[in-house]
Amino acid sequence: MGLQMTIEELEAFIAEVFPQVGGDFVVEDLGEMRIRVRLVTAEKHLRPGGTVSGPSMFALADVAVYMAVLAMIGPQALAVTTNCSIDFMRKPEAGKDLIAECRLLKLGRVLAVGEVLMVSDGGEAPVARASLTYSIPPR
Amino acid sequence: MGLQMTIEELEAFIAEVFPQVGGDFVVEDLGEMRIRVRLVTAEKHLRPGGTVSGPSMFALADVAVYMAVLAMIGPQALAVTTNCSIDFMRKPEAGKDLIAECRLLKLGRVLAVGEVLMVSDGGEAPVARASLTYSIPPR
Amino acid sequence: MGLQMTIEELEAFIAEVFPQVGGDFVVEDLGEMRIRVRLVTAEKHLRPGGTVSGPSMFALADVAVYMAVLAMIGPQALAVTTNCSIDFMRKPEAGKDLIAECRLLKLGRVLAVGEVLMVSDGGEAPVARASLTYSIPPR
Amino acid sequence: MGLQMTIEELEAFIAEVFPQVGGDFVVEDLGEMRIRVRLVTAEKHLRPGGTVSGPSMFALADVAVYMAVLAMIGPQALAVTTNCSIDFMRKPEAGKDLIAECRLLKLGRVLAVGEVLMVSDGGEAPVARASLTYSIPPR
Repeated sequence: MGLQMTIEELEAFIAEVFPQVGGDFVVEDLGEMRIRVRLVTAEKHLRPGGTVSGPSMFALADVAVYMAVLAMIGPQALAVTTNCSIDFMRKPEAGKDLIAECRLLKLGRVLAVGEVLMVSDGGEAPVARASLTYSIPPR
Repeated sequence: MGLQMTIEELEAFIAEVFPQVGGDFVVEDLGEMRIRVRLVTAEKHLRPGGTVSGPSMFALADVAVYMAVLAMIGPQALAVTTNCSIDFMRKPEAGKDLIAECRLLKLGRVLAVGEVLMVSDGGEAPVARASLTYSIPPR
Repeated sequence: MGLQMTIEELEAFIAEVFPQVGGDFVVEDLGEMRIRVRLVTAEKHLRPGGTVSGPSMFALADVAVYMAVLAMIGPQALAVTTNCSIDFMRKPEAGKDLIAECRLLKLGRVLAVGEVLMVSDGGEAPVARASLTYSIPPR
Repeated sequence: MGLQMTIEELEAFIAEVFPQVGGDFVVEDLGEMRIRVRLVTAEKHLRPGGTVSGPSMFALADVAVYMAVLAMIGPQALAVTTNCSIDFMRKPEAGKDLIAECRLLKLGRVLAVGEVLMVSDGGEAPVARASLTYSIPPR
């Protein structure tokens, strides 16, 4: 099972399906069962002090797994998140983008599971980790 | 241990600390170890089709537990979310606010745990549930 | 959609399917979309100091949701846990059984979600809470 | 911050503190912020069909993070699990041990976070993944 979409196709699909957020996320790398996504932080993602908010980190993890799944199964807007567990471990660095490394651990017929590690751009220490389950609609 | 803040004080504190989102959340009811919060849905919270987005549901759960904790310990901007587990169970109804019922299950010296059930305004079926842990700074 | 199994049928089914643990769990109450299950604590469930171990609490939550699902859909040994999030909030009381109150929040065609609150027998303060997702096999 | 305990010291400590389960777990590798632990599967860990049970997988993840934390901070029996999120992704292979690869993502003053990937011995596909938070007592 190989990649069904390119980075360009993924970004175009997200921009079309989620016009409000499409421009926030840039795919930096894509492979089978894995993706790296950058959150281009803007004012709306920040908390006082300039650090990325919890909901923005959730959104980054969510979109990263979504795109990793779509890249493998093709564009299916109807895949939906059913569960997310997220640990916030360190305060993100002020004024930095956030980078999500995502790996799919399972891509089944009806469920997909991905895990995501997030770091501030240029940093090493994990800011947050998340695992998400997506329900995949019957084809 | 009784309530340390009123609804008005809570909303004013949130508006001051999180100016970007303060107006999105309205406290509908407040008691010891529990709170009900309304997400006043606006365009920015929606996905195509008019339903509330996952990150907006996460934000509602997060702010509900935060306010329930603050109401009990007083205004401490430094309480931080360390973990959230959230299950998305049904699509929220288009064009409706989202109502979060939050209950604190633990309010310890260093950790607080709250759970949240979310329904579309006027509905009965749970749209999502979440449990969150907050780390409370030493006083 | 009403109950498909009685308490007696549930306990007999569990005893047959999970002979190693069947006798550990007693159904105390059963209704539509909810169940109360007692863990009859024995030496094997305990940690030094006489409190119930984490894995035993996990097992109680897991079996409670499993039985709540089976009671609604009928005996299907193949329903499997896909996800569990559990918060341990207080040390269980030594020498006490553990009581789990379980409620199903969703019972869909392919996924069921249940939440569980656990207290020491006779106590009020929650010892642990859990939410679990079960995948239901096609019929 | 280097390792404070050897594999032998860890196993001896676990055997003393948790006599019921001590022999079930073998440390296969230990490094700073990481550990590999084998669950030596016995009849008590199995479900019908010979696969490892959910509670046994939970126990393996829990003990792996516990030992990874102790190896870094020294023997402190009082570190307690506060949260675990676990995804069960594939049925473990019958008759095989289970191997847990654990990595600590955070080792703070009061909280530690670890993640664990579990595979059947000799296998590649992840059977389960877990993330756990431990609360560390003040020294």
